[in-house]
Amino acid sequence: MLNISKERIYEVVFEADTPAGKRFDLLLLLIIIMSVGVVVLETVPSLNKSYSSIFYTLEWIFTIIFTLEYLVRIYCVRKPKHYIFSFYGIIDLLSIIPTFFSLLFPGSQGLLVIRSIRLLRIFRILKLARYLGEANILLTALKASRIKVTVFIGAVSVIVLIVGALMYLIEGPQYGFVSIPMSAYWAIVTVTTVGFGDITPQTPLGQFLASLLMILGYGFIAVPTGIVSVELANAQQALSTQTCPTCMKQDHTLGAVYCKFCSAKLNS
Amino acid sequence: MLNISKERIYEVVFEADTPAGKRFDLLLLLIIIMSVGVVVLETVPSLNKSYSSIFYTLEWIFTIIFTLEYLVRIYCVRKPKHYIFSFYGIIDLLSIIPTFFSLLFPGSQGLLVIRSIRLLRIFRILKLARYLGEANILLTALKASRIKVTVFIGAVSVIVLIVGALMYLIEGPQYGFVSIPMSAYWAIVTVTTVGFGDITPQTPLGQFLASLLMILGYGFIAVPTGIVSVELANAQQALSTQTCPTCMKQDHTLGAVYCKFCSAKLNS
Amino acid sequence: MLNISKERIYEVVFEADTPAGKRFDLLLLLIIIMSVGVVVLETVPSLNKSYSSIFYTLEWIFTIIFTLEYLVRIYCVRKPKHYIFSFYGIIDLLSIIPTFFSLLFPGSQGLLVIRSIRLLRIFRILKLARYLGEANILLTALKASRIKVTVFIGAVSVIVLIVGALMYLIEGPQYGFVSIPMSAYWAIVTVTTVGFGDITPQTPLGQFLASLLMILGYGFIAVPTGIVSVELANAQQALSTQTCPTCMKQDHTLGAVYCKFCSAKLNS
Amino acid sequence: MLNISKERIYEVVFEADTPAGKRFDLLLLLIIIMSVGVVVLETVPSLNKSYSSIFYTLEWIFTIIFTLEYLVRIYCVRKPKHYIFSFYGIIDLLSIIPTFFSLLFPGSQGLLVIRSIRLLRIFRILKLARYLGEANILLTALKASRIKVTVFIGAVSVIVLIVGALMYLIEGPQYGFVSIPMSAYWAIVTVTTVGFGDITPQTPLGQFLASLLMILGYGFIAVPTGIVSVELANAQQALSTQTCPTCMKQDHTLGAVYCKFCSAKLNS
Repeated sequence: MLNISKERIYEVVFEADTPAGKRFDLLLLLIIIMSVGVVVLETVPSLNKSYSSIFYTLEWIFTIIFTLEYLVRIYCVRKPKHYIFSFYGIIDLLSIIPTFFSLLFPGSQGLLVIRSIRLLRIFRILKLARYLGEANILLTALKASRIKVTVFIGAVSVIVLIVGALMYLIEGPQYGFVSIPMSAYWAIVTVTTVGFGDITPQTPLGQFLASLLMILGYGFIAVPTGIVSVELANAQQALSTQTCPTCMKQDHTLGAVYCKFCSAKLNS
Repeated sequence: MLNISKERIYEVVFEADTPAGKRFDLLLLLIIIMSVGVVVLETVPSLNKSYSSIFYTLEWIFTIIFTLEYLVRIYCVRKPKHYIFSFYGIIDLLSIIPTFFSLLFPGSQGLLVIRSIRLLRIFRILKLARYLGEANILLTALKASRIKVTVFIGAVSVIVLIVGALMYLIEGPQYGFVSIPMSAYWAIVTVTTVGFGDITPQTPLGQFLASLLMILGYGFIAVPTGIVSVELANAQQALSTQTCPTCMKQDHTLGAVYCKFCSAKLNS
Repeated sequence: MLNISKERIYEVVFEADTPAGKRFDLLLLLIIIMSVGVVVLETVPSLNKSYSSIFYTLEWIFTIIFTLEYLVRIYCVRKPKHYIFSFYGIIDLLSIIPTFFSLLFPGSQGLLVIRSIRLLRIFRILKLARYLGEANILLTALKASRIKVTVFIGAVSVIVLIVGALMYLIEGPQYGFVSIPMSAYWAIVTVTTVGFGDITPQTPLGQFLASLLMILGYGFIAVPTGIVSVELANAQQALSTQTCPTCMKQDHTLGAVYCKFCSAKLNS
Repeated sequence: MLNISKERIYEVVFEADTPAGKRFDLLLLLIIIMSVGVVVLETVPSLNKSYSSIFYTLEWIFTIIFTLEYLVRIYCVRKPKHYIFSFYGIIDLLSIIPTFFSLLFPGSQGLLVIRSIRLLRIFRILKLARYLGEANILLTALKASRIKVTVFIGAVSVIVLIVGALMYLIEGPQYGFVSIPMSAYWAIVTVTTVGFGDITPQTPLGQFLASLLMILGYGFIAVPTGIVSVELANAQQALSTQTCPTCMKQDHTLGAVYCKFCSAKLNS
């Protein structure tokens, strides 16, 4: 073990290109999924009653594995501080802290609170994103549509607030619209076409306003969809282009043979 | 204060390009959000019981601030009438009137009615739109798709009315379909995929018709989405074009180097 | 009245291009909307109790107007048979028959059944489509996507049937899944994201299968949307093209100056 | 019958190009739909009570027809093993086994279990896909968008799990959020905009988080829609191209007259 160089460990732990690194990443992915499974299943009352000690043991095993992994990462990385304060470094730390934290509060009622902190370990699964490089086109499209989507969400928020206030006045507390925040919550449930049905308008005027809001929500879904469609088409086209060997420009359409900027032949 | 010229005030109050104008707009935005927050939270029963006097005071402070702002706008603008009868002038006025209006009706029961008028002050937040210039592409696309969306909404309205009448006949008042307007309301709830579930078909024939309506609504959402997608693509392409320095024509595709109308070189 | 020629009446009644024809169409549109309003409001219990005689009178007035209109159409059209058996001829007839039909059944219980036939008069509003020529692009796109949408609906139907059968077995009658048709109805409610909530899975396995179905429905909505988007883009592009004055070919892209088939200059 | 060659039977049974083959396929399609109808209607309590013996007889008739068809397919195909282990071979077998299986378990309670296996016969309708060649463009588009959709579903799964865990902590078992799996089920119901309403958040914080989740779900639907739209446009464009008679390349745009790779004239 001693003759394994820091560089070799770094290669295995941080990189996914080498066979050993790939195997390490797949194993880690498996352990992460299993540990998340344990956290999730632990909250099912019937399972927790029967297997609470098994869950407890598994939780500690996973925590020790992730702690070792975290220490190895700090050991082998060139700039430990850079890793520790990076997004993944913080996620890695947050996914081991809760279990240790639960040792300090052994009280019976306190356990419930601690269990809530333990759930932060679900952030572990965010590690999954690290292994998915294919998400790039999606992210580019979402980034490009960021401003337009924000404007859209702002417009929807204003509508939701106004409709919420109107419904509060029209329907009133006797039909469940107890306050403007509550009415705005109902308006969000309605405009997004979720429609729980726990609060529903009972007066003709309220039902008419609700109908308008539903049709608006039904039509408005077209806006984010249109935005993302256009940006995705752009992101994909940009990606599928090649660089011209003569003028070094990109942005050629898929399947082009000659550069559209300098007419030089492109590589196939 | 006296040596501040009308033009300088105009610059600060109406324009957002200068540093002072930008700071003024951001401050105003903050006050608007806070004042909306007060109106919204005031309707929460538990909060209103404890802090009604604080809400009352805050409401008057915000009203005085907005009144001063309204008067300053009228004072510094070149054509006051033009501002007063503009969209924003009316919104600005509507967002201060309700509080003053509440003074004329000091009756105990009347207060509830007055509170409803006060809610019009939520229109204040519409001022937000003034600060968002990015909404242009969205508006262009929505304007271009206006006629097609109207035809679509008309078609959906006819379907909703016919299905509503059929459901009224099939299900009848015993299952909640008490009248055609009520059945049409149910049809809107269903075709927009909101689905509150307060009224649901109970007969096999009603459920079959409801299934057809749901599939229709599920498929029809494609129509506004398709319309807006196509118009957004057009609006964005139009925006990304440059003007040819030789023939002055626009509508060139993104990244084009030569004018497609006269073959002159375009500016990068 | 006698010296008004058949051709002149035809022009007014059937055509919407002349000022007189336009005024006639707008008036008719207004009467149609009012008559539909009467049919709809007549079913509201509170209104029907107070104004049943007014509704009865209005209904007969509208029926007489539409009957006269129908007879005038038959009189002035060149080929009456062609009109009578056309789509609009049948709709025009169906919108007057129910009122006359109600005279033959004066029985007390029978009235309820007759009222159901009267509702067919709602088809009157379908006449609206006659006045909306703008619907053409939408129709072209919908026609072009017809086959693909049918395949899609077929695939969704098979999934709904299989999931319905599985849910019937998993959940069973005790949770509302009383038969496969009922379970398939629930599956349609779920896959279209309507979600009434009158029947919901209660077993873990049922909830897991329901989750899969919901995610499927949420993702599958992309398919009709994608189909219609692409077809709308095609339909709109086809419409915006001009005919080349030299080779008579269409299908030029928007803003093109030269024919892409024969290089002749296009008319602006 | 004896002088009908194996090749002739193969042509009728497996191919749909010849008139006889087409007639056979249409007849089979009809029988499949009828047999599925019998399975579905058999589960309706009122129908099963009255016509159980008819359903039983019909089920055996359909099973015998499908068994004969299965044997004929094995007899006439050149490589029986290839057919038996193909997708359709397995579906064909699965659609006849359950009825025979029910003979081995004549017990009264066992019948219910057997009925569940019989439902696998619904797979018969999957045979429908065999007759729909038009599904190709859809499949190409769905295949091309496979990876991006997987990434998207992965991202949604992580969000659902985290929101589920947070809702479990915020709302707790007293409002129906009894465990993380149950809360995750609720989160799926909400993010997909289905919204059954059997479990709904009751605390202000829970309703706020639910609002965020709904807006996310409402906006996120844009992602799969955008992906499929772009891929459909690609798939359709690829399909509408012709092969250049000179350079044998495809991928020409719709309506092109000259090859864009070698400038040779394309066949119309």
